[in-house]
Amino acid sequence: MTVTTSPRPIITLLSDFGNRDAYVGSMKGVILGLNPEAVLVDLTHDLPPQNLVAGALVLAGAAPFFPPGTIHLAVVDPGVGSSRRALAARCRGQFWVGPDNGLFHLVFKNGPDLRVVSLEKEEYFLPRVAPTFHGRDIFAPVAARLSLGMNLKELGREISDPVPLKIPEPVFALETVRGEIIYVDHFGNLVSNLSAAPLREWLGGRKLALRAGTLSLGEWSRTYADAAPGEFLALEGSHGYLEIACTMDNAARRLGAGVGLLVEIRRG
Amino acid sequence: MTVTTSPRPIITLLSDFGNRDAYVGSMKGVILGLNPEAVLVDLTHDLPPQNLVAGALVLAGAAPFFPPGTIHLAVVDPGVGSSRRALAARCRGQFWVGPDNGLFHLVFKNGPDLRVVSLEKEEYFLPRVAPTFHGRDIFAPVAARLSLGMNLKELGREISDPVPLKIPEPVFALETVRGEIIYVDHFGNLVSNLSAAPLREWLGGRKLALRAGTLSLGEWSRTYADAAPGEFLALEGSHGYLEIACTMDNAARRLGAGVGLLVEIRRG
Amino acid sequence: MTVTTSPRPIITLLSDFGNRDAYVGSMKGVILGLNPEAVLVDLTHDLPPQNLVAGALVLAGAAPFFPPGTIHLAVVDPGVGSSRRALAARCRGQFWVGPDNGLFHLVFKNGPDLRVVSLEKEEYFLPRVAPTFHGRDIFAPVAARLSLGMNLKELGREISDPVPLKIPEPVFALETVRGEIIYVDHFGNLVSNLSAAPLREWLGGRKLALRAGTLSLGEWSRTYADAAPGEFLALEGSHGYLEIACTMDNAARRLGAGVGLLVEIRRG
Repeated sequence: MTVTTSPRPIITLLSDFGNRDAYVGSMKGVILGLNPEAVLVDLTHDLPPQNLVAGALVLAGAAPFFPPGTIHLAVVDPGVGSSRRALAARCRGQFWVGPDNGLFHLVFKNGPDLRVVSLEKEEYFLPRVAPTFHGRDIFAPVAARLSLGMNLKELGREISDPVPLKIPEPVFALETVRGEIIYVDHFGNLVSNLSAAPLREWLGGRKLALRAGTLSLGEWSRTYADAAPGEFLALEGSHGYLEIACTMDNAARRLGAGVGLLVEIRRG
Repeated sequence: MTVTTSPRPIITLLSDFGNRDAYVGSMKGVILGLNPEAVLVDLTHDLPPQNLVAGALVLAGAAPFFPPGTIHLAVVDPGVGSSRRALAARCRGQFWVGPDNGLFHLVFKNGPDLRVVSLEKEEYFLPRVAPTFHGRDIFAPVAARLSLGMNLKELGREISDPVPLKIPEPVFALETVRGEIIYVDHFGNLVSNLSAAPLREWLGGRKLALRAGTLSLGEWSRTYADAAPGEFLALEGSHGYLEIACTMDNAARRLGAGVGLLVEIRRG
Repeated sequence: MTVTTSPRPIITLLSDFGNRDAYVGSMKGVILGLNPEAVLVDLTHDLPPQNLVAGALVLAGAAPFFPPGTIHLAVVDPGVGSSRRALAARCRGQFWVGPDNGLFHLVFKNGPDLRVVSLEKEEYFLPRVAPTFHGRDIFAPVAARLSLGMNLKELGREISDPVPLKIPEPVFALETVRGEIIYVDHFGNLVSNLSAAPLREWLGGRKLALRAGTLSLGEWSRTYADAAPGEFLALEGSHGYLEIACTMDNAARRLGAGVGLLVEIRRG
């Protein structure tokens, strides 16, 4: 599969660069200079600085809704300029370009068609690579070249050990499942590391009994409007993870809680 | 009128989703997957959460500057997953897709060509509709289908009673006009619900005498540079409403005031 | 050189309008209404309100990465509606549209091919120009007309004295160089007005000895990862200026410092 079949290749951009500086614009300029036909779509640039887990979740949440062949350029890169590798990859029918630091872990994990190359060919970068800004000088030109139909093989040396992400794993036991909050979204919804599907299976038809800090909840809700304003609920969010929300309010602020809050599940 | 005459149909997006999560990106992926030729333009995703009045004002303020046939996809949706209807509409030569909760009220009001349908045909949605995210699973695919030339009639069942917006109306009396602040913009300008045109008519050539909290102003100003730095002024903002501003400063912060501040006008 | 050779002309947008209101969307609607083929790229709309220095730095930092013929529409405009001129220009192979208040100073300075016109022909603006919003009513339609191939000469009257920017200049002396912080980026990196190239030349191969407030640093670092987490470093940022950063942390917050902080350099 190549991307050249699409008349207008899509390149998404994700970073923790914020929207205030010249960083994101510079990357877009580099891409459009190499491929004026590229369609650029921002996923987000407002990730908490240097937060790989947040970046990985947003990327894995949005990417499946893009068409095959989409190129995802993602930069959360505390190790820029150090010896961490730069990578381009194909996985799940799409392309991925960014630092080799775990940012793509949730995508690559169990991806049947995973192929990763280490970017080392300077002729495909900008002529002058600033050690502080590989997003502009390495990843943007490489994403543009992919969008022009260049093969992964041409771009780099194949590797088989992309760096995994350190993300807390839930613990399934006989009487309890223990997870924790790994992300707080814009609305203050607390997103846990508990995938809804295996959790429902573990419950085996019994009701959900959730404790998190001082909060106790006794059932799954279907949607945010299922409780009265100001009441808390547990539901499957649009990422497919169990989340704790507060109808018409900000659950994180109301609970004074955030990333790291422990969530304990029992059968009700 | 259809949108198929434009070589590249424009779809604008407006929401209170923020720019930090996967929500907006997912909607864009869905649209581009169905119509790679769509031109996507963000109006804003930074509306105050669940604030329909703010959403309605921004939408009604920006839409008239877009060409005929533009499709506006707007999602401020506290009742997502409840029984509120989903709608698509044509009005003022453009198209509108989103929840039926008053978000489009300022556009639909007095729109000569208004036609609204209730979206109920699941074959035009994503195969799996999450009860928490109709923006991605219902509104995005419907907007994409409109951009491909599908008719409103095909998309849903015609309705005649879209939900109105609860927005404070100004009170015109013999000696006074009473309005209130309904929006604070990025610069801290306090936007009232007083349309400038009828207000000028009521004044009948007399000077404006405005009181709002501790503030008194005795005339209209033409533009923000008309007062000395730090001084307040009353002027017609770019939305066409009376607003209170502070030259080179943030009027809302300086007055310690915001939405709900009463504004009383007399003839000077 | 004209822009008509590109199949899809690029127009970048930069402002202090924020991303919350209808302002940016309205400008985009105007442009796409006049030229549906324009490719719109946001540089930023989150500049500190009315901060010309920040706008000038971001613009000068991002523009060189865009292809020749790109049109940059920039609006930081505290004097909107006053007698300040409106301009369009060609410089460094690209086009520039916005207020004549110094916003383009860093681009125009030493630009070999500079040509500037004052925009005075109302037939190229929107039919009704609001005194509060030249971005939408003057600059957007002029940028669109440039993207359609209209000449500068047609658009306005040539001028030779665009307004310069008041930006602090560094002072090079025998024993010291004195500069100051003029911008704080999204990561809290403190960007100075000291261009790295002339500073290195002044050092003449000697080590860098920097003092800024209570901070002393004794060398250049190559990249953010060169120090241990929480330690400060001095490096050449991606704009080409000396900046003070803090590995894995926010230097501005850690130092309690920002724009205006004095930076003194000696030879080490």
